[in-house]
Amino acid sequence: MTPTDRAALRQALLSPRAVALIGQSDDAAKTTGRPLKFLRQMGYRGTIYPINPRRETVLGERAWKSVSALPEPPDHAYILLPTEAVIDAVAECGRAGVKIATILAAGFSETGAEGTAREHRLRAVATETGIRVIGPSSLGVVNLREGVMLTANAAFAEPDIPVGRIFVGSHSGTMIGALMSRGKAKGVGFAGLVSVGNEVDLTVGEICLSTLDDPDIDGYLLFLESLRNSAALREFALGAAARGKPVVAYKLGRSSAARELAVTHTGALAGEDDVASAFLADCGIARVESLEGLLEAMPLVRRTPIRPAGARPPTVAVLTTTAGGATMVVDPLAMRGIEIAQPTAETFARFAAKGIEATPARIVDLTIAGARYEVMKAALDILTTAPEFDMVLAVVGSSARFQPELAVRPVIDSASAAKPIAAFLVPEAPQALAMLSEAGVPSFRTPEACADAIAAALARRAPKPAAPTPAIGDGRVLDELEAYALLDRLGVPRSPAVALDATIAQVPSLPFGYPVVVKVLSADIPHKTEAGGVALNVQDGDALVAAIKTMRATVQQRTGITPDRLLVAPMISGIGEALIGYRVDREAGPLIMVAAGGVYTEIYRDRSLRLAPVDLPTAHAMIDEVKAFATLKGFRGKPAGDLDALAKAIVALSQLALQNDPVVAEAEVNPLIVRPDGVVAVDALVKTG
Amino acid sequence: MTPTDRAALRQALLSPRAVALIGQSDDAAKTTGRPLKFLRQMGYRGTIYPINPRRETVLGERAWKSVSALPEPPDHAYILLPTEAVIDAVAECGRAGVKIATILAAGFSETGAEGTAREHRLRAVATETGIRVIGPSSLGVVNLREGVMLTANAAFAEPDIPVGRIFVGSHSGTMIGALMSRGKAKGVGFAGLVSVGNEVDLTVGEICLSTLDDPDIDGYLLFLESLRNSAALREFALGAAARGKPVVAYKLGRSSAARELAVTHTGALAGEDDVASAFLADCGIARVESLEGLLEAMPLVRRTPIRPAGARPPTVAVLTTTAGGATMVVDPLAMRGIEIAQPTAETFARFAAKGIEATPARIVDLTIAGARYEVMKAALDILTTAPEFDMVLAVVGSSARFQPELAVRPVIDSASAAKPIAAFLVPEAPQALAMLSEAGVPSFRTPEACADAIAAALARRAPKPAAPTPAIGDGRVLDELEAYALLDRLGVPRSPAVALDATIAQVPSLPFGYPVVVKVLSADIPHKTEAGGVALNVQDGDALVAAIKTMRATVQQRTGITPDRLLVAPMISGIGEALIGYRVDREAGPLIMVAAGGVYTEIYRDRSLRLAPVDLPTAHAMIDEVKAFATLKGFRGKPAGDLDALAKAIVALSQLALQNDPVVAEAEVNPLIVRPDGVVAVDALVKTG
Repeated sequence: MTPTDRAALRQALLSPRAVALIGQSDDAAKTTGRPLKFLRQMGYRGTIYPINPRRETVLGERAWKSVSALPEPPDHAYILLPTEAVIDAVAECGRAGVKIATILAAGFSETGAEGTAREHRLRAVATETGIRVIGPSSLGVVNLREGVMLTANAAFAEPDIPVGRIFVGSHSGTMIGALMSRGKAKGVGFAGLVSVGNEVDLTVGEICLSTLDDPDIDGYLLFLESLRNSAALREFALGAAARGKPVVAYKLGRSSAARELAVTHTGALAGEDDVASAFLADCGIARVESLEGLLEAMPLVRRTPIRPAGARPPTVAVLTTTAGGATMVVDPLAMRGIEIAQPTAETFARFAAKGIEATPARIVDLTIAGARYEVMKAALDILTTAPEFDMVLAVVGSSARFQPELAVRPVIDSASAAKPIAAFLVPEAPQALAMLSEAGVPSFRTPEACADAIAAALARRAPKPAAPTPAIGDGRVLDELEAYALLDRLGVPRSPAVALDATIAQVPSLPFGYPVVVKVLSADIPHKTEAGGVALNVQDGDALVAAIKTMRATVQQRTGITPDRLLVAPMISGIGEALIGYRVDREAGPLIMVAAGGVYTEIYRDRSLRLAPVDLPTAHAMIDEVKAFATLKGFRGKPAGDLDALAKAIVALSQLALQNDPVVAEAEVNPLIVRPDGVVAVDALVKTG
Repeated sequence: MTPTDRAALRQALLSPRAVALIGQSDDAAKTTGRPLKFLRQMGYRGTIYPINPRRETVLGERAWKSVSALPEPPDHAYILLPTEAVIDAVAECGRAGVKIATILAAGFSETGAEGTAREHRLRAVATETGIRVIGPSSLGVVNLREGVMLTANAAFAEPDIPVGRIFVGSHSGTMIGALMSRGKAKGVGFAGLVSVGNEVDLTVGEICLSTLDDPDIDGYLLFLESLRNSAALREFALGAAARGKPVVAYKLGRSSAARELAVTHTGALAGEDDVASAFLADCGIARVESLEGLLEAMPLVRRTPIRPAGARPPTVAVLTTTAGGATMVVDPLAMRGIEIAQPTAETFARFAAKGIEATPARIVDLTIAGARYEVMKAALDILTTAPEFDMVLAVVGSSARFQPELAVRPVIDSASAAKPIAAFLVPEAPQALAMLSEAGVPSFRTPEACADAIAAALARRAPKPAAPTPAIGDGRVLDELEAYALLDRLGVPRSPAVALDATIAQVPSLPFGYPVVVKVLSADIPHKTEAGGVALNVQDGDALVAAIKTMRATVQQRTGITPDRLLVAPMISGIGEALIGYRVDREAGPLIMVAAGGVYTEIYRDRSLRLAPVDLPTAHAMIDEVKAFATLKGFRGKPAGDLDALAKAIVALSQLALQNDPVVAEAEVNPLIVRPDGVVAVDALVKTG
């Protein structure tokens, strides 16, 4: 989207000079009665055209018969009509020159064949007339700064809605009200909120894109039900990152049950959750896992620098007056892989020099006796300047409630430290939380939200520049020799192999020794083992000829295909195996994956994903994420595998994202044998796009 | 503990006629100044003896010189002195006839050798004088009903502390104040709260035990930092269950980092978290995983019947006006293995008969259009009487905030339904929450706390009667034939095997065919493979004699032990393998475990544990908990393994908990081969106690 397009969209969306409420009811208690009430309540200063052909007035205001009867085309129409009446209304709006129609009704592609047909007609009308559409199933568009309350969400009856600098894009309509009302209770205000519904036309990415240069917006919260329309989302995220505007997202669908629900509910496709996670992370978006985390994470995410790929794992210093309270945060943090590192001996020496008693441990526990301003402040000064930490977490016990001067004030007075500080207060302590918040110290109400925000902030990655996603057509499966040739071009080491005629009767001479493996060589037989097309551990030439003869017969019998050629390769063993895979994901684009392979990896979903291509530090980070690779790191006295070679192979395969000849839709090296000195691909399956 | 002992302990603990505050400061802002202030503030009606030999008065009241100078021995003394002065004070209290001394100071066994010596002296003084001790590191004992505020926790400066019917036992002193103040903010009151500190004498279990017959206590919250002193905890939990008083526990230490911290902080031993989970569950205790869950779960746990072992997995019906909001609960629920089941066709037919539009899906989504009293109430009536569900979750969207009559009132009017109902309100809606709470409907502020409470309530098991824990001494390792004999007595099927002389030179006649496995037979060589003491796949008699000869030499060379005997058994293969293990855990008592065995099971901690012995339905439930057993259930076209035989083997091994001849400290069958028809142990390691 060009800057001009963005500005035009933003204007019609968030700063409409006039709005139409099509189907506005006279009953303010009804869903369709709310928008007019809310617009008046928040003091919208543009022109409002309530449209209701059956009434002269609605809620005491003149009701217009139709959009075409209006003296001017409004910028933005909120269509509150029942499903069946929506398309005609959109068409009328489009013809009248309305720029955006937001649709409340449900009943489109999420409801089966009839709904899908309706959605097609809606798209056609939009394309024909040039009108942009938000929804269907949109609870509306809100710009709190200008009182634009094009929403039917009942929660917006809230008085004194605070205005802030965060913009919300949400797949769920309920959530715009929930975030607003919950935010108010926490002192968090928003600039605007949009419920994007089913995204038939305008997507959450495009809508957020349009607001990128809004000077009164300095951060984004996204509530996502699935990963869809990801190109615009990525473009937006990159733009936000370039402007230093952090994006925090909550995405439903960590469980497969929830992903199934997203399909039923919105008609979206259900991708795999770790694909969505990889996508969001590689867009520089911080993903939280709780509702409280979504509302509370922004200040900490904003203050936490993005760590470069290849940096050591992030470490958090924990300073507390209550070990039990601090452990409530440490426990969920550790479950998410965030290391609570023990201060170095140097740091403990600095404590001692200041007369601070601190037992060498991973938590600096001042105990109740240390809940004093001087002690706490000195300890914070030391930890915020200790080079071994990326962040300092201060956990304050019961004194926070009535004596914040003891242990909360020193945290406030450390707000400008060079390192981000997060605070968790163990008792209910609203005043102290407000003091911290006002001073700009990210602070949290629950240990779980605190851990969620810290993990999300520290996991944030630099966004990866968007590469064009290769167009995928109906490709073909390469045979193994062709696949090996592709690996050779990419620089993924692979086993030597020779192709033999399947009718061979004499012992061939091989460029490698026995034992060997024999595999049927045919793109038409992807499942070689099931077809009887693999013979392992063939010990000598005679056995090889015999194996080939048997294989030819078995394959023919099982598949009906008479194999022409066979591939012979040496038997190769190593410390263990890996699976590396590349594919162009329908939603996320080119992806690279590494896993241990095998049945258990599948059961435990133990794999690491990134948007492709990746660099070497990223490949190493991926390897570190796969738990099963513990067996490659000198496990139980076994030698270690060559993880650097594994990382290089990941990088090499990920370069498929940049190549067009051929376009590759999917490539899987499984297994890649990991040896003490190098890696070797011994099987590869490649499908072109 | 006898009822009389319990009553006496409870009286001195929670209803002391007189209390002493030893070391009470004149400065109410200091930690040691708080107890007197709090006692007066809450209107304690017994006699208070502040003791401070350096002052005539403290906080305007007469200060006494010493406990021995008092006109009567108080029931309970709170010792606020520095660490070094504690033991003399306890001794003086004991001699004067004080029944309980609660100790604030830290600095005992958690601080190393000097502290450990101090703790030994403390124990000796207690034993000598008969005084019972709470702490050290106890922030005190609170009985809100009688204004007993023997606490230095600053949070108790709270005005208008609500009194309720829940009793809190906490390893953490901070948490008694945090639970009280956070509870107040949520409308949750407590009867009493005890910070048990390091449990040198009185444990959290004994303290709770003493309150079991308190008619004003009808439930318990426990905050545990580790599993320790578990016998009393189990006795208490069984007593609470017998009286229908639910126990909800939060336990730190899900991560290994947190378990390490518990060791540093309290000197407790760090057990494995799944052992603690199994222990708590088999005590009938509901374990929550979040602070909010701990505060909010009780009403739901109270209303949720305990499901018998062997019942189908619990199912939750979800009724909502907002699919996105509902999925926020469904997602974490599904991550914890709670099934959101789709209503049956019969149930959907009942919806249709009432004119309720509901798309067949796992969530009954009435949409915003269904946010009406009649629709919601009729839907609740149907779901609370649908036999396929154990619980109904109602998730109400934005209308909950200002129009609770639409979709919250029907939930309230369903409070007396036969099935437990849980409610989550998506927006901030304090009034509606208060209405629900007043009506006795368990309701939740966050989707995460809601999911936590539901999972904890549905996972609750009937407490297992306490069996005496066998006393474990220095036992010995049985050789494999002895171990097999034990398996035979228990009824765990095992491989046939014969013992041969290690000097055999002639081909022996075997009662089974080849191929066979040969293993060195010696209790002195537990690690047979490493010793060269295993030969697999021996094909015939000559190979057997050769293998024996080689093995004898290798074992002698590697271990210095000349093996006398060898065990020969047939090679047995199956669908897969299992590991079943029994051990007497230091803290939890006799435990039975099942896992898939092997490297990956260890990496993923994929195992299931119960207190032993177990019955057949429980054994089946354990098998269902092991993810890797997916491979035994007809995975990728393989035949299914005999899981009933596996369950029977688990039950059989678990009977070790009941046998005394010999007492077994540890027994591990690894692997147990799982075949389509039966299971066979092919190796066993047993250590007597």
